[in-house]
Amino acid sequence: MNLTIADVRLTPILVADPPLLNTQGVHQPYTPRLIVEVETAGGVVGFGETYGDTKYLELARPFARKLIGRQVSDLNGLFAVADEVAVADARVSGQVDVGGLRGVQTADKLRLSVLSGFEVACLDALGRALGLPVHALLGGKVRDAVEYSAYLFYKWADHPAGVAAEKDDWGAALDPAGVVAQARLFKERYGFTSFKLKGGVFPPDEEIAAVRALAEAFPGHPLRLDPNGAWSVATSLKVAEELGDVLEYLEDPALGTAAMAEVAAGTEVPLATNMCVTTFAEIAEAFAKGAVQVVLSDHHYWGGLRNTQQLAAICRTFGVGVSMHSNTHLGISLAAMTQVAATVPDLHHACDSHYPWQTEDVLTERLVFEGGKVAVSDAPGLGVEVDRERLRALHRRWVDDDGGLRERDDAAAMRVAEPGWVTPGVPRW
Amino acid sequence: MNLTIADVRLTPILVADPPLLNTQGVHQPYTPRLIVEVETAGGVVGFGETYGDTKYLELARPFARKLIGRQVSDLNGLFAVADEVAVADARVSGQVDVGGLRGVQTADKLRLSVLSGFEVACLDALGRALGLPVHALLGGKVRDAVEYSAYLFYKWADHPAGVAAEKDDWGAALDPAGVVAQARLFKERYGFTSFKLKGGVFPPDEEIAAVRALAEAFPGHPLRLDPNGAWSVATSLKVAEELGDVLEYLEDPALGTAAMAEVAAGTEVPLATNMCVTTFAEIAEAFAKGAVQVVLSDHHYWGGLRNTQQLAAICRTFGVGVSMHSNTHLGISLAAMTQVAATVPDLHHACDSHYPWQTEDVLTERLVFEGGKVAVSDAPGLGVEVDRERLRALHRRWVDDDGGLRERDDAAAMRVAEPGWVTPGVPRW
Repeated sequence: MNLTIADVRLTPILVADPPLLNTQGVHQPYTPRLIVEVETAGGVVGFGETYGDTKYLELARPFARKLIGRQVSDLNGLFAVADEVAVADARVSGQVDVGGLRGVQTADKLRLSVLSGFEVACLDALGRALGLPVHALLGGKVRDAVEYSAYLFYKWADHPAGVAAEKDDWGAALDPAGVVAQARLFKERYGFTSFKLKGGVFPPDEEIAAVRALAEAFPGHPLRLDPNGAWSVATSLKVAEELGDVLEYLEDPALGTAAMAEVAAGTEVPLATNMCVTTFAEIAEAFAKGAVQVVLSDHHYWGGLRNTQQLAAICRTFGVGVSMHSNTHLGISLAAMTQVAATVPDLHHACDSHYPWQTEDVLTERLVFEGGKVAVSDAPGLGVEVDRERLRALHRRWVDDDGGLRERDDAAAMRVAEPGWVTPGVPRW
Repeated sequence: MNLTIADVRLTPILVADPPLLNTQGVHQPYTPRLIVEVETAGGVVGFGETYGDTKYLELARPFARKLIGRQVSDLNGLFAVADEVAVADARVSGQVDVGGLRGVQTADKLRLSVLSGFEVACLDALGRALGLPVHALLGGKVRDAVEYSAYLFYKWADHPAGVAAEKDDWGAALDPAGVVAQARLFKERYGFTSFKLKGGVFPPDEEIAAVRALAEAFPGHPLRLDPNGAWSVATSLKVAEELGDVLEYLEDPALGTAAMAEVAAGTEVPLATNMCVTTFAEIAEAFAKGAVQVVLSDHHYWGGLRNTQQLAAICRTFGVGVSMHSNTHLGISLAAMTQVAATVPDLHHACDSHYPWQTEDVLTERLVFEGGKVAVSDAPGLGVEVDRERLRALHRRWVDDDGGLRERDDAAAMRVAEPGWVTPGVPRW
């Protein structure tokens, strides 16, 4: 069994994305993703997926070259490889991009985001070569299915007129009734029993009303609200007070450890985060200050599935909950999330996933939510098969779109509809 | 490839131990260890090793029965198995046994100590079945050899007259000259370049003199002193001040987080521990108080190799160093320690090992220290072979010794030489 990496292939793609609203703007009609393939000398291919913006792609190319000749089992060694790949300062300093929705930007975090695509591809290849599911390479599953939460968004019915885009069938959701209707559809289609609303879009009172409407429509179901740090401490505390009886947690109400700690000190509602604690370096201070009660891990930017397990171990040790964050992603990442989530002992909150919003995928067969859960595959590797025709088609879109859809930029997308739009300052309310 | 566990065998043994002194007494002539074998339905056998005292053995038996039919790859599932095995209260409460040398006694810790033997055996079997070294199952090695420290002990030339015991060739070491002579022999035989002296045996001034003598004999080499919590805060600070210029760290000078934190606050000498932080539950408080700067992990009581990696990740995240503790152990455990240590990125201190003190082993070929290091095996599993004849012989000794050497009890051994001996109270000085 030859586990030496003989080839690494990178395929940037553009995948259709509905007009989902957040505090920075709106999703563009297409989102760049990067599909990573690692092939062993024995001819086994493993797949991974990560962010596809130019800065990730720039880094992935030299990273990929360095992997040739290494072992797919050498996962710890990926971190040394990452350290060797230079990141241009301009890529991580002073930029206001969508990275703002997932916390601090650093060279290390960029490296880890790229690394995660390769780590998942290596685990997939290793599992396929050994005939073992990825979860077995991570110590084995402790559950047979992983629960996900319905990820509700305020959204327009369509992308702005004149913009090339795929059509979705979700309709608009711009008020409490629209949000509840969307939630019903989520429940009907996928069986989700907990609901998260992406907030920070409308003034807090409107979002409070939406969550109240959800609570009435789905009594007893766990609810979450996530304004991506758009609120002041005072606003956060007001929302916590008004929704405290129905919220499972409040996600990133305010920005930064100091503000989060202040909010946490003033409410019994647990605070979750994928913005305040997004790197190992941020943990010590945030935990010491009691700033967060649930860390929403994202294997993409935490540096892979094994780092996600380490993060979970740290949270467990410090009495902090853990669950999972999601950005726009396809089935490869959902399979990876499900495999690692299956191995985390104390997963007490349903994970987030954008997957239902993605009508396109590179898989031969889409992953299925049943009763809000994804079954943990016991097939070798990630347990998914890539459809090369679909991959080629999405790559073709990326190649053809030389007009420049190379970065996710929610503010730019918003400016198409509202020409004067600038990313709102924080706190917005 | 059938990875189902078809059989689990437990072989308690007695292994010869020299008359090494510590603050509780002296090592008995034989120490109980438990050798664990896990055999898959495919006929692959993996070995593990852990403590062999009766309370471990009592727990290992039902544990072993529960493993039949499980997968050797199901390492996370071992913790659920452990939770199912009852521990009698009397086994962990109010006992003053050698457990006192390795921190708090709890039912969980006892379970984890037993679990570790099975986890290592499962990893060995899994690696053999897959044709991969254990380190590859742990994410891959980041170094080719693991550095160990010479573990110096005050010792008698022989066990007390009239006691059945094997003879060792190290001679006595009861003063600075004896300690330096022992260190020279360690260096000559194994190439160690850092030295740890087990203290808490003589009044602090004598031990300070011994470390001073080591510093003169081996200028510039890292030195450590470990009195197993025998000192008061004031004594600890005095020793730290007198030896601050030559100590790599001071190990467990005082007992408990509060005392350690007080010592840490008063000296620049880093404090290491295998007594103050020995469970995940003890980490948060100790780290918050700055009580320890280096955690000495022991895969036996931390619950295996994967937990050891998690501990290392926690330490790294909180800026605390990590290295390895050792009790009397054989080559299976040294191989396991070496495999996991090879995967830990920030291992900045040489690990401890009693192995040079053990003239007996169950391996066909002993592991070798060269230049103070053990090479990381790339052979499948742990990379060691068990000699069934030797295993049988050491088990025969355990069976025949029905006079009762079933527990490690350093105070009882001391009473043979000093009939009035009682375990000294803490702080002793």
